[in-house]
Formats: sequence, structure tokens, C-alpha cells
Amino acid sequence: MSSQTRYRMDLAYDGTNFAGWQVQPDQCTIQGELERVWAKLAGQPIRVEASGRTDTGVHARGQVAHVDWPLPPWLDRKLALALNALLPSSIRVLSLRRVPDTFHARFSATGKEYRYFIDNGPVRHPIERLYSTWIRDRLDIAAMQLAAAQLIGEHDFAAFTANPNREVDGTVRNLRMLSVRRTGHQVVIRAASNGFLYKMVRSLAGFLIRVGRNEVNPEQATEILASKVRTARVPTAPPEGLFLWKVQYANDQRCR
Amino acid sequence: MSSQTRYRMDLAYDGTNFAGWQVQPDQCTIQGELERVWAKLAGQPIRVEASGRTDTGVHARGQVAHVDWPLPPWLDRKLALALNALLPSSIRVLSLRRVPDTFHARFSATGKEYRYFIDNGPVRHPIERLYSTWIRDRLDIAAMQLAAAQLIGEHDFAAFTANPNREVDGTVRNLRMLSVRRTGHQVVIRAASNGFLYKMVRSLAGFLIRVGRNEVNPEQATEILASKVRTARVPTAPPEGLFLWKVQYANDQRCR
Repeated sequence: MSSQTRYRMDLAYDGTNFAGWQVQPDQCTIQGELERVWAKLAGQPIRVEASGRTDTGVHARGQVAHVDWPLPPWLDRKLALALNALLPSSIRVLSLRRVPDTFHARFSATGKEYRYFIDNGPVRHPIERLYSTWIRDRLDIAAMQLAAAQLIGEHDFAAFTANPNREVDGTVRNLRMLSVRRTGHQVVIRAASNGFLYKMVRSLAGFLIRVGRNEVNPEQATEILASKVRTARVPTAPPEGLFLWKVQYANDQRCR
Repeated sequence: MSSQTRYRMDLAYDGTNFAGWQVQPDQCTIQGELERVWAKLAGQPIRVEASGRTDTGVHARGQVAHVDWPLPPWLDRKLALALNALLPSSIRVLSLRRVPDTFHARFSATGKEYRYFIDNGPVRHPIERLYSTWIRDRLDIAAMQLAAAQLIGEHDFAAFTANPNREVDGTVRNLRMLSVRRTGHQVVIRAASNGFLYKMVRSLAGFLIRVGRNEVNPEQATEILASKVRTARVPTAPPEGLFLWKVQYANDQRCR
């Protein structure tokens, strides 16, 4: 029996000035800021567990994390206000709610969606520069869509990760969605999966961008997948265009 | 007869880190950066003239300025690339073209459009924090629209400027459009006029926000206009939500 209260946090952050999610000595990190603020409220160290790490410079609109609060529960609203008052304006708790101890931000997640934003205008727009990657050459969206269609489904994505040996669960994932869409100067790549390998979304984006520049034939997608070996056809796209958009859970864990 | 070439620049900038448009000693300003870069290319001082100044922290998506280039003309594209290569990424020349000497960024302008962005969600969203003003209380859009409708047309806007004595052309302006629209958590105020007084858009936005919070009755718009006196009912809304969106000219001055 534990007297702790488990809280689920839905988070958004501007990753521009952070060395990613994970706590690291002498670096500003998202987890570091959150743990600092929770510890301040609790008067003791508190561990913040996320659905997964985000890399240096990557943003989030829908990251999920949980903490175990060791004191008598506060009003959720009051606690969220206190957290946001102490956090830098680049990190915000969008919502906070009590969840059963069986809820785990990482292990209960059944899937994730990421979005990758490309500014495909002739000049890198100042207002979008922190939240998109600039590609000057007009991208061939039809070719990108053709390549993306071949990657959807359950595959071994070893060719689309920065380090296949790092994955304890192997390198097979079920890519449920990979779409490419242009609206004016903006191109958005959406990717949803039951799980992503290390730097997998940026590898998919990097590959699709090369296809969109007509540097790689879209038909090569199947061959690259089958090879299970990463080559120069799969660069890692820059972090500033990437947003962790949503984390999916099997059922709504909200307490009533 | 002048051997100069006049160039029109269409500009976008992120005003977050600038003390506004106008050159000021020991401060980063948009005009200061542009004049520094033009002077570097020309090897002599060059004056950059805008359609009008923007205040500290105000952004632009469609500012227009002109310069007189004292050397033999470059290829427009090459000159624009050189300017953008030297400018900070927060300022960009979106397009550059030669115009007749009769074109003047300020005196040829026949109107302007501004947009004011409000993040009206329960939590100040990190990704929008640099480009909108956060108002937590849910705004009453219908009341704001009712107030806005009374301000449209040719009026003396002395009650909606920070300093009526500063205006050499008097304080009568023709407000062609003043609209308020909500899309999800975002509220956008659009204002178009043949000209704006000093801090007029932020005064209109400040007033409309007070109306939207039900702190001021929308019916008071007419009375405030008629009073020609600024009161606490008309605060100046913060600069980060404001964008100079477009400058209108009577006819397209592009050389063919």
C-alpha cells in the first residue's frame, strides 16, 4: 500500500533552448526543469517519467509524463497553477489529473504521433524559423507520398534509426500513418506508430526530403527497408521541425 | 538625373529581440540591421525608409521599405541573397525589386493591414508565446464584434492613440476593417485603414479585449470615439501579439 498519488501531466514545450528531455548534468533539460519544480513543491526529490525522451531542440505539443506525489493530494487545478508559475514559459503543464497506479506514461502508451514541419518557401521565414526546417527547393509532394506509402505497416525499421543496437525491443514497428501534405509554403509530415526507434521520425523525414528533392527515387523505399542498413539515402532531418504531437493510451485513465 | 537605383523590399521580421524599427543608439533595431547590411554591400551609408515604424516587440509579415542603391544595379535575386546572408535570421527580405523613383515606401502607401493574435486558451501555450498575447479568461467574441462594428469608418480616433499631439496629419482616419474571429484557442483581430495613429492598433485591441472580458460595455465604443479622450477603457495591448501584415499601394510598381 502506497500513500502516494500518481499524477498524469500533459505537457507542451518549446525545445529550442533545451538539451532534450533527459536530465543531464549542467544542461537545461525538460525533465530537469520539471523535476526541479516538483521537488520545490514537495520539499523532496520527485522523479518525472515521460512517455519517451525527446532529443535536443525537439518540441512537444502533447508529451505525457507521470509523477508520484508523496504528500496529501492538492487540488489538481491548484497544483497545475503552481507548477506553471514556477516553470519557464517555454514549458507548460496543459493539464494535470490523478491516475491509478497502474498508469505509466511510458509503459501504458499504445502509440505516438509526431509531426514534422517544413518551411518550403523561397526565403526562410523569420516567424517560422524556430518551429520548422527550411528547405528552399520546391519539394515534389507526389514523390514523397509515393515513398511514404511503401513505409506504412509493420516493418523492420533498422534502416531508419540512428542506432539499431540501442533498441531492447528489436527494430520492428507498426507504422500506422505516414502522410505528407502541402498547405501554401508549409509541408507537414505526420507519422503515427505503436512505437518509434531512436531518431526514427527524423530519419523518415530526412529520407522523404531527399525523395522530395528528387535526389532519391521513391521506389527505393521498399529496398531500403529490406536492406535493414542505414545509408546516406537516410539522413537525420534537423530537430527544430519536429513535434511530439500526441501520445495514445488504450483507455482514458481519468479518475471521476 | 540620378544614377541611383531605387529598390523596394518586402520584409518579414520577428520583433521579439528588437527595440522596434527605428535606428537608436546602442540598441538592436530592424532599420539599424538593414542599414548596416546595405552599407556593407554598398561600401557607403544607405538610408532605409519604411512604410512606417513598428514599436519594440512588434512583428511584421509584410513591411515594405525602399532604398536608393548608389552603385550599378545588381541582379535583384543576387542582391536579395546577399542581404539575407548578412542579416540575422529574425529579419528576412522576402522579395526585392526595382521601382521608379516616384515610389516611396511611406508616402506612396494607400493603406495598411495589421493583425493582432490572442492565445485565449487556459494555459499560455509555449509554442505561441512569442507571437501572441495570452488572455486566460474566455473572451466574448460577439461583444467584441459589436464594439468593432461601431469603430469602422472615418472617425476621429484621438481616443485610440497614445499621443494625439504627435500626429501631424490630425487624428481622423478611415478604418476600413476591424474584425474579430475565433479559431479554437486563437482569437485574431484584423484592422485595415488608410493610416494608423501612434499605437492605434494596440489601443483598439486593448479596448476590444476589455469588451471581450465584459469589463466595458460594447455600446461605449461610439461614446469613447465621440469623447476624443483616451481613458482607462482603452489600454495599450502588449506588443508581442501584433503583426504588420500588409502595406497597400495604389498600383503595382513592379518594373517589367
